[in-house]
Amino acid sequence: MDEISATRVMDGLTDAARAAARRLAVSPPAQRDDALRAAAAAIRAASQAILAANRLDVAAATVSDAFLDRLTLTPARVEAMAKGLEDVAALPEPLGKILSEWTRPNGLLLRRVAVSIGVIGMIYESRPNVGADAAGLCIKSGNAVILRGGSDSLHSARAIHRAIVTGLEAAGLPAACVQVVPDSDRAHVSAMLGAAGRIDLIIPRGGKSLVERVQREARVPVLAHAEGLCHTYIHAGADPEMARRVLADAKMRRTGICGATETLLIDAAIAPSFLPVLVEDLKGLGCRFVADERARDIVASLDAATQADFATEWLDSKLSIAVVDGVEAALAHIAHYGSHHTEAIITEDETAATAFLNGTDSAVVMWNASTQFCDGGEFGFGAEIGIATGKLHARGPVGLEQLTTFRYEVRGTGQVRG
Amino acid sequence: MDEISATRVMDGLTDAARAAARRLAVSPPAQRDDALRAAAAAIRAASQAILAANRLDVAAATVSDAFLDRLTLTPARVEAMAKGLEDVAALPEPLGKILSEWTRPNGLLLRRVAVSIGVIGMIYESRPNVGADAAGLCIKSGNAVILRGGSDSLHSARAIHRAIVTGLEAAGLPAACVQVVPDSDRAHVSAMLGAAGRIDLIIPRGGKSLVERVQREARVPVLAHAEGLCHTYIHAGADPEMARRVLADAKMRRTGICGATETLLIDAAIAPSFLPVLVEDLKGLGCRFVADERARDIVASLDAATQADFATEWLDSKLSIAVVDGVEAALAHIAHYGSHHTEAIITEDETAATAFLNGTDSAVVMWNASTQFCDGGEFGFGAEIGIATGKLHARGPVGLEQLTTFRYEVRGTGQVRG
Repeated sequence: MDEISATRVMDGLTDAARAAARRLAVSPPAQRDDALRAAAAAIRAASQAILAANRLDVAAATVSDAFLDRLTLTPARVEAMAKGLEDVAALPEPLGKILSEWTRPNGLLLRRVAVSIGVIGMIYESRPNVGADAAGLCIKSGNAVILRGGSDSLHSARAIHRAIVTGLEAAGLPAACVQVVPDSDRAHVSAMLGAAGRIDLIIPRGGKSLVERVQREARVPVLAHAEGLCHTYIHAGADPEMARRVLADAKMRRTGICGATETLLIDAAIAPSFLPVLVEDLKGLGCRFVADERARDIVASLDAATQADFATEWLDSKLSIAVVDGVEAALAHIAHYGSHHTEAIITEDETAATAFLNGTDSAVVMWNASTQFCDGGEFGFGAEIGIATGKLHARGPVGLEQLTTFRYEVRGTGQVRG
Repeated sequence: MDEISATRVMDGLTDAARAAARRLAVSPPAQRDDALRAAAAAIRAASQAILAANRLDVAAATVSDAFLDRLTLTPARVEAMAKGLEDVAALPEPLGKILSEWTRPNGLLLRRVAVSIGVIGMIYESRPNVGADAAGLCIKSGNAVILRGGSDSLHSARAIHRAIVTGLEAAGLPAACVQVVPDSDRAHVSAMLGAAGRIDLIIPRGGKSLVERVQREARVPVLAHAEGLCHTYIHAGADPEMARRVLADAKMRRTGICGATETLLIDAAIAPSFLPVLVEDLKGLGCRFVADERARDIVASLDAATQADFATEWLDSKLSIAVVDGVEAALAHIAHYGSHHTEAIITEDETAATAFLNGTDSAVVMWNASTQFCDGGEFGFGAEIGIATGKLHARGPVGLEQLTTFRYEVRGTGQVRG
C-alpha cells in the first residue's frame, strides 16, 4: 500500500479513536469495569472461534519454534486472557485522582489531577494475548488504543478484538475504544509512527529490531523497552548466604526476562574466598561464565570476557563476572556498560548501600533483593503493559498509573493578573 | 561543517556533560546553591564584558526591531539574569524527594524518589538571558545542560557562559555542567537532535519553525511549546462583572504570550444582551474582532470569521468570537480548534464548571480566572524554563520539578522471586 493510502486509513482510525477517547475519558469507572468484565465473558464465549482463528495463523506461520510457541493459543491461554481483563477491572480507578493541591496567595486553588492520555498506539509481535492485555489496561485508564499485532497473528488478533468490542458495546462504550489495524501491510506501521497529534503515545512490544525501528521513525512519543543489562554487585559487607540465594535467583530463576542479572560485580576483598562458592552454586544450576582477568586469577576455569561481553544482554544461562574495588568502581562499571534498567547491591553496610542507590542512573535500584523483582506485578501495579527504559514520564514497569497523565485545574473567584 | 565532524564535536560535549551530570546528581544541595550564587556574582562582576560582547552581536545582527530588542542586553537585563540565578538558588531542593512509598506483602519496601534527568539540550533563539535562566534551573535540578543559542547571540552567550563557569568552579563543580556549542554551525543542531542516549531531553525555545524542526528531526525526547490557542468560555451562569474583568485581562493584559485568550465562546442565552457590552469593553482597550454569524447578528459591526480564523493563534489585539449553545457545544468547539494549552470557563454554576473542567483535553483548565495565569511564576514554581504543550512527563509550565524524573528504590532483606 502506498504512503498516502496508508495515511488515509490511519486518519480514519485515529479520528474514530479520538472521538471514542473523549467519551471514555469522562465515562464512570463502573462503565469501564463493566466493559472489561463483559469482554472477558465474550472471550470465554468465543473461545472456540479464537482458537480456530489462531490455528489459521499457526498453520501459515513459517517461523522458529520459540516464536511458534508464543504465537500458539491454548484453552488455558484464552482463559488467562479473560481472567486478565477481570483482574484489571478489579484494580483501583486510576483517573480523577488529585495528585497534588495548593493555594496561591491570590486565592487561586491549583490541582494536579490524573487524566487519561488519549489515543495509544500499540505495536507488538507474535503473542496474541498482548493485544488483549493492552486493550484491558487502556480501557481501564480511559485511553483509546489502536492495535497493530504481528502479521503472523492477524486472524487471532481479529477474533480477540471482536470479543473485546462485544464487551465495549455491552457496556455502552464506543467500539472504536479498541481498534485493530485492518491488514498486515507495513505501511500502516509507518503511518502510525508518523501520526503526530493524532496518536499521543506509541508502545512497541517485541524484539530489538522492532523497538529500534519505532524509536528511529516515530514522530510520536514512545514508551519503549530497549535493553535490560542488569548488574548484581556483591559488596564486601554482604551476608554470604543471602548473596548466594539472591544471585542464584537474579541470574537463573528465569534467564530470558529483562530483569535477569547479566553481570556479577564482586568486591576484591571477598572475591578470593567467595567467588569460587558463587561459581559452584551457579554451575550447579547450569550457568556458564565469562570473567575478567582478576576473576580468572581466582577461578582459573572461567572463560575470558571481552569488553563486548560486558556490554551483552545474554538473556541466557550465562553470566559476565568482574572483580571491583568497592562501590565507586562498581558504579563506574555500571555507568560504562549498563542499560539504566535495574541494578542491585547485596550488603549489610547501609553507607555502601546508600552510595550505590544514589550513584546509579538506572530506573530501578535494589538493596538486598533479586533484580528479577523488576516487574509490574511484583511492584504491586496489578498488571503491566511493558517496562520502560527511557527516563521521561514512566520508568520501569508500565501499569495503569503510567498510562495516565495529568492536567492542572485552577479554581478562582474572578482573579486577573492585571 | 559535515555531519561526521559535527557528531564528533557533539560526542565530546555529551561525554563531558554525562560525567559532569553524574557528579552534579550526587552533589549536596548547598554546593549547587553556592554555584548559582557565585555565578550571579560573576555575572555582575562581568557586566561590562557581557554588555560589550552583546554590542558585537547587536552590531552584526541584521534582523527585525522586535528581534533586536530581544537580543539587546542592558545593565538592568544583566542584573535580572544575576538576580534570577539567586532566586533559583533560594527555591526548595527538588532532588531526593520521596514521591511515594509502599511495602509489598513479601516485605520489600518500594520508594519512588525524585532524581535529575541527566543531560539536557537547550536550543533557543535570540534572547541571551534564556541561556542563563536554563543554566540556573538545570544546575539546581542536578542536570548538565548543553546550550545552543541563536547564531546572532553567540558572543553574548559565550560571555554569560564564562561567568556561569566561574560560579561552578568556585563551588567545586565541573565546568562541563554548563556548556555552549562552540560555533553557530547548524550542523551542531542536527547533531544534538540525533544524540539519542547521550542527551536525555531537548528543550527548544523559539519560534514555530524552530520548534517544528526540533519535533520533526529529534531522536531524543522533546519538551516543547507548540501553540497556545486559548479559549475563554462565558457560560450563561456567569457573573457579568467578573466575566468583563476576566475576559479583558485574559485577552488584553499581554497579547503576545501563549496564555492569552484568542477565542471568546459565549452562550446564546446571554449573548444578545452581554456580547455588545464585552465588545465595547475590549474595543476600548484597542481590540479588533472576527466573529461567527450568530455573533454578527447581535453586533453587526463585527468582521466575519473564517474557519481558519478560529484555528489562528493571534498573539495580537484581536479576538475570535463564537456563540455556542451550552457547555457541550463549547467543548466541541475547543476540541475542534484548540491546541490543548489553557481554557477557562466563567460561571457561578458548579455543575457547568465541573463538566467543562472534565471535558477539555488541555494541560490547564480554569474556572473563573484569567487564562494569563498559565505561567510558572503564577503557579508557584518560582521559575520556568518554558511551557510544555505535549501530554507526557510535563504539561504546562516547566519548572524545577518538571526537570526531574524518578527512580524506584527497592529495599529488601534478601527476598528472591523463587
